[in-house]
Amino acid sequence: MQFHELTIPTSERRQAIDVTDRIDAVVADSGTAEGLCHIYVPHVTAALAVNEAKDPLVMIDVLDHLARLVPADGEYRHRCQDDNADAHVQAALLGNQRTFFIRNGRLWLGTYPRIFLCELDGPRRRQVWIGISRG
Amino acid sequence: MQFHELTIPTSERRQAIDVTDRIDAVVADSGTAEGLCHIYVPHVTAALAVNEAKDPLVMIDVLDHLARLVPADGEYRHRCQDDNADAHVQAALLGNQRTFFIRNGRLWLGTYPRIFLCELDGPRRRQVWIGISRG
Amino acid sequence: MQFHELTIPTSERRQAIDVTDRIDAVVADSGTAEGLCHIYVPHVTAALAVNEAKDPLVMIDVLDHLARLVPADGEYRHRCQDDNADAHVQAALLGNQRTFFIRNGRLWLGTYPRIFLCELDGPRRRQVWIGISRG
Repeated sequence: MQFHELTIPTSERRQAIDVTDRIDAVVADSGTAEGLCHIYVPHVTAALAVNEAKDPLVMIDVLDHLARLVPADGEYRHRCQDDNADAHVQAALLGNQRTFFIRNGRLWLGTYPRIFLCELDGPRRRQVWIGISRG
Repeated sequence: MQFHELTIPTSERRQAIDVTDRIDAVVADSGTAEGLCHIYVPHVTAALAVNEAKDPLVMIDVLDHLARLVPADGEYRHRCQDDNADAHVQAALLGNQRTFFIRNGRLWLGTYPRIFLCELDGPRRRQVWIGISRG
Repeated sequence: MQFHELTIPTSERRQAIDVTDRIDAVVADSGTAEGLCHIYVPHVTAALAVNEAKDPLVMIDVLDHLARLVPADGEYRHRCQDDNADAHVQAALLGNQRTFFIRNGRLWLGTYPRIFLCELDGPRRRQVWIGISRG
């Protein structure tokens, strides 16, 4: 198991950042021809999503609709200084981890899927942890 | 790591297809007594779910309720020729990957859980990628 | 691959139980310095979530908001003796499995993330299956 860590600064409160190329570069550098790539964000107000990047409006739709389902001004009991209960609930729905195949030394995602770090309570410096194994 | 690929044709726009037996047959054929089975659908308008199959109405409820939460006629910006923004958002909520245990040479799911391919924008030919490892 | 099983009795219909320390003890006992910890609940009306434990109101918000999105008195077709269609839909949204890193012989989660068993149709005796691999 090889561990790697990326630091991704975010610039808005809510933002989807395509991190596919950065993760794929780590996979390529690892020299692992076939295996698994585990991704984990060690946060509770950020998450991961897999979706299309070709039309950037798709991930804007995902985050906008998530904000309609879990609105910032909803009824929540968690009232820390950040007033970010919506971000916690949204993160629980999206999840903070994913597992991908590695083949021919690269991420093997299919034609359309791309990996997005979803900032739900930024801007902050976020981490993406990557574990590469031969499976 | 052993890789396998299933092709699953879907017949409706929205449909849950129980793929457990097909995946379990791949696991049995692999000769892996104990390990992990990683499932990944290389799509952005299809997803995976784990739920009960005994009453087929359960997965109908899951897809119907998901369509109430993320309606086809909602406010989305992604307007491709398929007009399928709802499917992208729903896929982000369900996720496109799962990991299961293998024990005694078979999927080890428990009494009720079954694995469903969720078509959200069909009919199409969908793929299910399977990776089997000894863990 | 080492398999372990925890039994967690729940005491309410809907309840989030922090199982991090119990899983971490299994990891520590396994003698695995670096690897992966796969968690799976073999149920269709219980789920897993990763979120903050410092303020217990966060997970109360998650379950309460999920009940607003997927209400007990919603329109569902599944009407078993338990009248628990809402729990099935909620479980599909949260998911019943997660994968975590192991480093230095312990779960490697980051500062805030903790692992919660989410009871959605209790009280019942629930199981948490744990698979530990070197990756």
